[in-house]
Amino acid sequence: MVGAGQLARMTYQAGISLGISLKLLAERPDDGAALVASDVELGSPDSYDALSSFASSCDVTTFDHELVNAEHLRSLERDGHCIRPSADVVALVQNKRSMRERLDRLGFPVPPYRAVSGLAELLAFAERHGWPTVGKSIRGGYDGRGVWVLEGPDAAESLVQTASGAGIDLLVEAFVPIERELAIVVARRPGGQAVAYPLVETVQRNGICHELLVPARVSPVLAEQARDLGLAIAEAIGVVGILAVELFVAKGRLLVNELAARPHNSGHFSIEGCQTSQFENHLRAVLDWPLGSTDLLAQAVATVNVLGGTESVEPLDQLPEVLSDPGVRIHLYGKQARPGRKLGHVTVLAADLESALSRARRTAAGLVRSSAVEVAS
Amino acid sequence: MVGAGQLARMTYQAGISLGISLKLLAERPDDGAALVASDVELGSPDSYDALSSFASSCDVTTFDHELVNAEHLRSLERDGHCIRPSADVVALVQNKRSMRERLDRLGFPVPPYRAVSGLAELLAFAERHGWPTVGKSIRGGYDGRGVWVLEGPDAAESLVQTASGAGIDLLVEAFVPIERELAIVVARRPGGQAVAYPLVETVQRNGICHELLVPARVSPVLAEQARDLGLAIAEAIGVVGILAVELFVAKGRLLVNELAARPHNSGHFSIEGCQTSQFENHLRAVLDWPLGSTDLLAQAVATVNVLGGTESVEPLDQLPEVLSDPGVRIHLYGKQARPGRKLGHVTVLAADLESALSRARRTAAGLVRSSAVEVAS
Repeated sequence: MVGAGQLARMTYQAGISLGISLKLLAERPDDGAALVASDVELGSPDSYDALSSFASSCDVTTFDHELVNAEHLRSLERDGHCIRPSADVVALVQNKRSMRERLDRLGFPVPPYRAVSGLAELLAFAERHGWPTVGKSIRGGYDGRGVWVLEGPDAAESLVQTASGAGIDLLVEAFVPIERELAIVVARRPGGQAVAYPLVETVQRNGICHELLVPARVSPVLAEQARDLGLAIAEAIGVVGILAVELFVAKGRLLVNELAARPHNSGHFSIEGCQTSQFENHLRAVLDWPLGSTDLLAQAVATVNVLGGTESVEPLDQLPEVLSDPGVRIHLYGKQARPGRKLGHVTVLAADLESALSRARRTAAGLVRSSAVEVAS
Repeated sequence: MVGAGQLARMTYQAGISLGISLKLLAERPDDGAALVASDVELGSPDSYDALSSFASSCDVTTFDHELVNAEHLRSLERDGHCIRPSADVVALVQNKRSMRERLDRLGFPVPPYRAVSGLAELLAFAERHGWPTVGKSIRGGYDGRGVWVLEGPDAAESLVQTASGAGIDLLVEAFVPIERELAIVVARRPGGQAVAYPLVETVQRNGICHELLVPARVSPVLAEQARDLGLAIAEAIGVVGILAVELFVAKGRLLVNELAARPHNSGHFSIEGCQTSQFENHLRAVLDWPLGSTDLLAQAVATVNVLGGTESVEPLDQLPEVLSDPGVRIHLYGKQARPGRKLGHVTVLAADLESALSRARRTAAGLVRSSAVEVAS
C-alpha cells in the first residue's frame, strides 16, 4: 500500500487477520501506519523510482491516498505491475474536472459545473447559476482544502488571482441547497463482483467529515437509489477496491459530489458496525478474492471523528477517562495532536441513532477535552 | 508483551486501535506476532537478562504464555517493574499442584486430586477413586500435552517411570464423567473492577480446544454459577488482565479444570462476537483502564480452530475459495502449516448456533482442505 496514514493503518490491522503481508511505502517513519507495521519502505509517492522499486516487491500495489503521479502508475502498469485501482481510475478521481466530465457524460447526476480558465468564464457561470458559487481546485484538494464558497464577484476575482499565482486550475460549480450529505461505500473486484455498504449520512464541518450516521435518515427509496448509484459508478469507471461516493441531497434528489477510490473516512463505521470492514474488503477486492458481507451488526451505528483541538491534549492520555463508557470503540491514529488534525475516531453501536451519536460525540470530545456538541435531529 | 505467538498477534491488533505501543519479546523473528509488529525484541523468556532489559523498556509487562520463570518475575517486581499479572499469579497458574491446592483451600469446586511422588501413591489414589485415572504433569503442559488418561496399573507404572526419567512431577486426578466443557473468560483490573464474557461451551479433541459455542448450551442457572465462579476466582487470586477458567460439567455440577492468566483460545469468539474483545480488555486491564462491554453482538457465535492437517496445505492459499461464504471471519496466525498446529480460527455470527457452527466448520476445514465434521447436538 502506497501511503501510510490512518487508512493504511486500519488496512494493516485488517490484513493481520487474513495473514496478508501488507507492505507500506511511507513518506515518514512516524506516519500512523509506519509506526505499527513491520514492513515499511521509506520513499515518496511522487518518485517513479520509489514507486517502481516498491511495486516490484509486491504482488499487488494499492493506495491509501490519491496523491500519486498517475503517469508513473501507467508506466508501472506497462511494465506489468498489478496496480489496483488502475492508473486510469487514480487519474480520474484525482482530477475533479475529469471526474465531473466523465460522470456527466455517463449520465450520473452532478451539480452544474464548468472548468474556468479566467475570471470572465467564472463570472459568466455565476451569472447563469447565481451567487454564491463554489470554486474548486481541480487537483489536490481534500478535507475542505481547495474548496471556496464565493459570495460574489469580488471573492471570485481574488480567488482567480490567487489560483493563477499558485498555478491552480479551477472548476466552478453551482451552489446547491444541501439538505443532507450522504456517502455510499462500495467494494468491487476486477471481474465486477461488488458489494455496497449501508448508506451513511455524513455531517461535515468546515469541509471535514465529522460524523457518520448509519443508517442514513432518508427514505428507503432514496437509500436504494444511492446504493444503485454507487454500484453503477463503480462499474462504469471500473474501480477495483473501495470506492466512496459522496452525495448531496438537494431538492430531494441525489447529486454526486466527490469520489474516492480507496478506503474512506465515511466507511469507518464498518470496522465494528458491519460483518466485514471496508479495510478488509479493500484488501479482498484488490487481491481479487470474494468480498465479505456488509451486513450491519446493530440497529444504529454512529462514528465521530476526533479532531485536534486548540489545547494541546494527547488523546492517548484521555483514554482512562473516556473509556469509562464501556461500549465506545476508540481508534487512535498515532498522530501528534495539532488543531483540526484527524487524530482518531469513535464508533458506538446502539439500538437508536440518537444515543449512539451522543455517546460517540461525548467520547470524541473527551479525547481532546473539548465540550461535546448536542445532538441535533 | 512477553511471547509473540497468536495471542500476542491478536493483542497487537487490538492495541493499534487504542494507539498503544505494544512491544514484543519474541523468541524467533518468525513468531506469529513478530511478523506483524514494528517493535520486537528477540530474547528468551527464560533469560533473566532478556526479561529485565525488556521490562525496563516498558511501562507494564504482560504475557502471551505462562512459560516464564516466575522467580525472574519476582526479581523484576522487587526492582520496581510493573508485572501484570503478577509473579504470584504466574507462579500459581503454571503449577497445576499449587493451582489445585489454592482453589481447593478457597472452597472452589475441583475434581479429587493428589500430587504423587511415586507409583504407590498413584495406585492408592486410583484405588480410592477408581480407574481410569488422570495423570498430569504439574508444570508445562498445554493443548493436551502433559495429560494422560491411565486405564490401569500398567499404564500408571509406565507413566511414573517415564516421568521420573524426564524429571516430571506428577499430579493425579479422578476421571470425571464430563457432560460438557465450558470456559468463563474474565478481565480484571488491579483495583478489582472485573467483567465476565458470555459463557463459552468448548469442544476439545485430543486435548486441544477445537470449537467454541456461544452462548453455551446450559441452563441459565448454571451459566450464572459459572460467571460467578469465574469472577470469584479472579478476585481470590488477584489476577490482573484476562483469566480464562476452564470448567467441566460433571453430574450437573461445575468443576474447575484449568486456569490461564492471559488471553485464551476460549475467548477468541469475542473479537467479532462481543463489543470489546478479550485482547482489548486484556490491554485495558493491565494498563488499569476501565474495561469494555462484553455484550454479545449476535444471537449465536461459533468459533472453530484451524489445525494443520496431514497434507501440507497453506491456509492462505485457500482464502480465495473459502471466502466465498461472505459472513465468515477468518484469522490466520502467520504460522507454517504442520499437522495439529493451531494455524488460525474462524468465527461466524448468526441467528442460531447450528448454522454458525456448520459454516465455521466448513470454512475451517476448507482452509486445510480436510473434510468438515458434521454438527452434532
